[in-house]
Amino acid sequence: MIKPRTPPGVMELLPPDQIAFQRMLDTIRRNFERFGFLPVETPVMELSEVLLTKSGGETERQVYFVQSTGALGKAEGAGEGMPELALRFDLTVPLARFVAEHEHELAFPFRRYQMQRVYRGERAQRGRFREFYQCDIDVIGKDALSVRFDAELPAVIHAVFSELDIGAFTIQLNNRKLMRGFFEAQGVADGELQALVLREVDKLDKRGEDYVRETLTGEGFNLPADGVEKILDFVKVRSTSHADAMAQLDALGEGNDSLRDGVAELREVLELVRALGVPETHYALNFSIARGLDYYTGTVYETTLNDYPQIGSICSGGRYENLASHYTKSKLPGVGISIGLTRLFWQLREAGLLGKATGSTVQAMVALMDADSLPDALDIARRLRGAGINTEMQMEARKIGKQFQYASRAGIRFVVLTGEDERARGVVAVKDLLREEQFEVAREELASTLRVELEQAHVLAGR
Amino acid sequence: MIKPRTPPGVMELLPPDQIAFQRMLDTIRRNFERFGFLPVETPVMELSEVLLTKSGGETERQVYFVQSTGALGKAEGAGEGMPELALRFDLTVPLARFVAEHEHELAFPFRRYQMQRVYRGERAQRGRFREFYQCDIDVIGKDALSVRFDAELPAVIHAVFSELDIGAFTIQLNNRKLMRGFFEAQGVADGELQALVLREVDKLDKRGEDYVRETLTGEGFNLPADGVEKILDFVKVRSTSHADAMAQLDALGEGNDSLRDGVAELREVLELVRALGVPETHYALNFSIARGLDYYTGTVYETTLNDYPQIGSICSGGRYENLASHYTKSKLPGVGISIGLTRLFWQLREAGLLGKATGSTVQAMVALMDADSLPDALDIARRLRGAGINTEMQMEARKIGKQFQYASRAGIRFVVLTGEDERARGVVAVKDLLREEQFEVAREELASTLRVELEQAHVLAGR
Repeated sequence: MIKPRTPPGVMELLPPDQIAFQRMLDTIRRNFERFGFLPVETPVMELSEVLLTKSGGETERQVYFVQSTGALGKAEGAGEGMPELALRFDLTVPLARFVAEHEHELAFPFRRYQMQRVYRGERAQRGRFREFYQCDIDVIGKDALSVRFDAELPAVIHAVFSELDIGAFTIQLNNRKLMRGFFEAQGVADGELQALVLREVDKLDKRGEDYVRETLTGEGFNLPADGVEKILDFVKVRSTSHADAMAQLDALGEGNDSLRDGVAELREVLELVRALGVPETHYALNFSIARGLDYYTGTVYETTLNDYPQIGSICSGGRYENLASHYTKSKLPGVGISIGLTRLFWQLREAGLLGKATGSTVQAMVALMDADSLPDALDIARRLRGAGINTEMQMEARKIGKQFQYASRAGIRFVVLTGEDERARGVVAVKDLLREEQFEVAREELASTLRVELEQAHVLAGR
Repeated sequence: MIKPRTPPGVMELLPPDQIAFQRMLDTIRRNFERFGFLPVETPVMELSEVLLTKSGGETERQVYFVQSTGALGKAEGAGEGMPELALRFDLTVPLARFVAEHEHELAFPFRRYQMQRVYRGERAQRGRFREFYQCDIDVIGKDALSVRFDAELPAVIHAVFSELDIGAFTIQLNNRKLMRGFFEAQGVADGELQALVLREVDKLDKRGEDYVRETLTGEGFNLPADGVEKILDFVKVRSTSHADAMAQLDALGEGNDSLRDGVAELREVLELVRALGVPETHYALNFSIARGLDYYTGTVYETTLNDYPQIGSICSGGRYENLASHYTKSKLPGVGISIGLTRLFWQLREAGLLGKATGSTVQAMVALMDADSLPDALDIARRLRGAGINTEMQMEARKIGKQFQYASRAGIRFVVLTGEDERARGVVAVKDLLREEQFEVAREELASTLRVELEQAHVLAGR
């Protein structure tokens, strides 16, 4: 006898939670499609040679390699080194491979969405996952891509998280060119040095301003005191409205080329974000956001839940210069965002924020009073299903109390009963477990009656 | 520069095909839910010890093992044998593990559906996949499960394939008890011998009746000639209607216990299949269907496309005695079916049967005439999206002919235009690429007008 269990670091859900998770996936997909993004799915396994174009680094240490039984034996014998196949660790590298491979079959700008699981051999730790969903959208241009596309993504983020209904959120924007220009003006011109300074700045919340000030002015960094003050003021900038955001950008003054470019881009993005109907309460400048410094080159985004800042960013991304330089000579600039849904779901559940999403996919249950009623009950189930109502059929007659209890625990709203008496009168009895009331309805009208009730609930729930 | 490519044996689709594939997945899921099945997703990686409970055999040779970079080094050094993790090769073993693990948190009978990819290290060959989707439903009982559940599955199969709209199909039924009883009566009592006889019988189509007759009466089998004739007649049985199916079962006579049990089960299943509204043109007895002989114990199913028999079974399954004997002492009988969607999709595409499923997820495109129109165009896109219409926005003004060409190739139905003239008159111009006509509509009425058109198309398509 082997103990049934999953490997550590995976999230497996029981049906009620899986239903809630699936609804979130569906909502995200619906909104991605609403904005014209096209679906792509890639294999979970890529050729190692293709996946691991960058040698070494943290990423490669976390990669899962894959070998069939045959290859396993051979590789051990021959000691040939890296196995041929590996599991994807994000959706960006597969996208780069996909776009480069199918470059001549795709129309650019290419808007794609992809919602699949990715794999990382992280150290096992509560809230860290080795298998998790990423829900990504990217727009890829050929040779060039207008900054206007950077404005569409906040509109998608706004649509997704409004409909997910998990509380107030803010899409925070920054621009790498603006940052680079600002740091250069403070005498921090070198990219690596900028990265080191930003790493210290990132400790503001945990270690406090004094600690960061001392570090940056002290040995090692040796930055001038007034420059450090300017940096500390800069990374504290948050806008409180659209007009305030524009004023904050004005306040940066003329500056160098890089700063000017960044300011111009952010201005245009903010204006278009507003034109796309995103309320100004839902976006803000945040000059502390840097994201992956070696990757993003323009607009960068993070999204946070206003009432749960400790959860951190629930949707991040930005603009990059060239997607697939390892696979093609074509220049493919892009802009994209990613939602780590497995982690988000886990955190929302931990914070008790998943309550609203409950309720089974099963909308009605046909109870079975006695064996003789079976053909009749099957016919009722058939009619309900024909009308588009998800219906479970009780195939064995149990005590009616048990059947109600089952439906109630399972989150099924309607229980339909048909006894001898009801059959004789051409009606069925319906118990509405949501409204806690029972009613009779003519057999012919059952399906349409329940449909109306379900659609009303749908409208009331704002979906 | 590395050549961008996928590993052999995977199916990766460009967006138009991916949209068609996703629609099939959605249709299958919608129908699984319609019949009250609940979603489960399991991790792609299982502990090898848990996954590979049976030692040796074809299955284990095809398993993909998974190792993180760290583990890879260690295992090679220590030569510890089997890696800790492996990719699932079907959805049945993960289901067994899941049900045994969560036995006390699930309500039985437990109806679950699961639609995920599975992995097999098959030899690379056209039309054979190493990664492919399985779409499974199973009903699992605790201690016992009424044969009535065996009748629900054909109703689900009927609903799924009717809506997939891929041509006429027949759900073929048989029963392992009936088969065993019949073979016992012909003196083929031993299970392994039955399997060998059935393997020969399986060659009827390819090698012809004479070959099979000679083999079974010849050395090795040495079966009596009249017994072989009875076997050859038996496996040819196909029913042509519900009444004919009942008559065929009658014609088997009294027989032994096993035959009687099988006949009684098939009778009940067929009656309930009819009560569930499956038309008698869509199901039939087929006494040649055996399926996995060491696994299935009662009802077995195969589904074939009437006009494409060469595709083989597109949905198969059956009744099994005990799901999870490796993981729990509880007896968990079940009945299930599986659709191998990747292979089915590939075959339908090869046969040119996917035509109907075309058309983009994008329903409308807002063209951009000139840079000045951008805020206005964005506002129109926002309204369309707000009304639930999937809308792509042209962010850069290109020649209008190019924009139409793009929309046409992408399978987008509506192109919305707003020039200076239209703006002045408070209207927008719409080109319907499906009907090949152009019309004007008041700006305020655009979204509702397109919704009506799209819903009509939906109704006309019978969805």
